[in-house]
Parts: sequence; C-alpha cells; structure tokens
Amino acid sequence: MTDRRRPTDPAPYYEAHVFCCTNDRGEGAKRPSCARRGSEKLRDYMKAQARAGGLADVRINASGCLDRCELGCTMVIYPEGVWYHYDTRADLDEIIETHLKKGERVERLIMTPDQKDELRPEQQMAPAAE
Amino acid sequence: MTDRRRPTDPAPYYEAHVFCCTNDRGEGAKRPSCARRGSEKLRDYMKAQARAGGLADVRINASGCLDRCELGCTMVIYPEGVWYHYDTRADLDEIIETHLKKGERVERLIMTPDQKDELRPEQQMAPAAE
Repeated sequence: MTDRRRPTDPAPYYEAHVFCCTNDRGEGAKRPSCARRGSEKLRDYMKAQARAGGLADVRINASGCLDRCELGCTMVIYPEGVWYHYDTRADLDEIIETHLKKGERVERLIMTPDQKDELRPEQQMAPAAE
Repeated sequence: MTDRRRPTDPAPYYEAHVFCCTNDRGEGAKRPSCARRGSEKLRDYMKAQARAGGLADVRINASGCLDRCELGCTMVIYPEGVWYHYDTRADLDEIIETHLKKGERVERLIMTPDQKDELRPEQQMAPAAE
C-alpha cells in the first residue's frame, strides 16, 4: 500500500505536488471549512513563495474538500502522502523550507490518520494571517 | 524520488487520492481548460461511481489547474502519481475498474511526462459525455 507505483509507470510529472483545501462551506454551515480560516490567501502565498524559492518541480494546487474540516487549514503533499495543518504564513514558510526543500518533516504540524476532530495543542496557533 | 516517504511518516489517510482538474479559464481564454470539456460533471460522476462501487478508502477530489491544459480533461492519482486523460463516463468507468479496483493501468489513457501539447490518437475520443 505504501508503494502503489509499478516499474512501468511513467516518471512523476512533479517532484512534489501540494494540495491545499480551499473549500468554502459558507456562513452558518454545520462543519467548518478551510476557506473560512483563510486557506485561499495562504495557498496563494505558498504558491508565490515556492516559485520565488526556485522550487521548479513542485506544484502548489488548490483542491476541493479534503474532508478533515475540523482540522483545517489542511494540505496534503504527494507522492509521500504527508498531511499538514497550517494557520499562518510562518507555518507555510516552515513547510517549504523543511519539507519541500530539505525533505524533512514539520512534526509540529503533521496530522496523523487517527486525528479526526481535534488539533493537538502545538497545532493551535494564531488565526490565519492576512 | 520515486519514494519520498520516510519510515516514520504517518500511515496514508487514503489508499488512493484522485484529483480531477475542474479549472475553468472562461470563454475566449488563450489556453483550453478542463471544465470547458466537461470535467466538473465527469468528476461528480466518478465520485458517485466510486462511492457506489464501495471504494471506501479512495477519495475523488476536484482540484485547481494541473497545468496540462492542452491535454484535458486531466486527472492524477496519488500516491502512485499516475496521470490520465479522460473524456467520457466510459473512460472513468475503466479507470475505476482497472486502476482503482484492480491496481492495473489504463494504458490507452495514461499521460507521459513528456506529453505536453497533444493527445495520442487513441486518447482522442468522443467529446465529454452529458
């Protein structure tokens, strides 16, 4: 399951492919949504920073709902399948530097598969930056 | 590069994660876009079919522009990083049955990394269903 690739598959198109949920459930929705926490502007920031940082083989995409709404803002990075919570530009800078550039992990922000409803204390940071 | 995962990474959240570009550049845009070829309805169809087919650990997401606009409709399936062109519901049925259920490949529809501007003859099928 950890390696679903086949030897005959074409080479990857991107070295890393980031998907930032920008779903907006609108006001009064029962579940929260990433766009309501500022994910659209944060994703734009990450895209610009990745480009400015020369990450040519990395793509920073917006996506629909990643269904971890209570934990947003949410992103997933493939092919490694690592999920992060983020709130601020500083969080994104750290993900770019540590994960995308160095291939390491931002342990503080990583979301585990059993984490469904609540952020860990160290993930509860300031509200989304402007 | 083919395995960016680390042994200490959390288990994957989904077994397979499909991203279908639903970007719409609007009328008169210089480049084509997947939504103009019917990708939104096709993605809705794939999502419903995957659910009806009992693919519980598979998520079918919409995404922003995957930047292979001349080859749309475009999807990518992670973590394996396999890219497909599709035009019809029959294409999607084949991807669900062959790739998602059996773990095999729909060779006819696979897009290679060097394929930037033109579909291969076998990929040029009927226009988007509806």
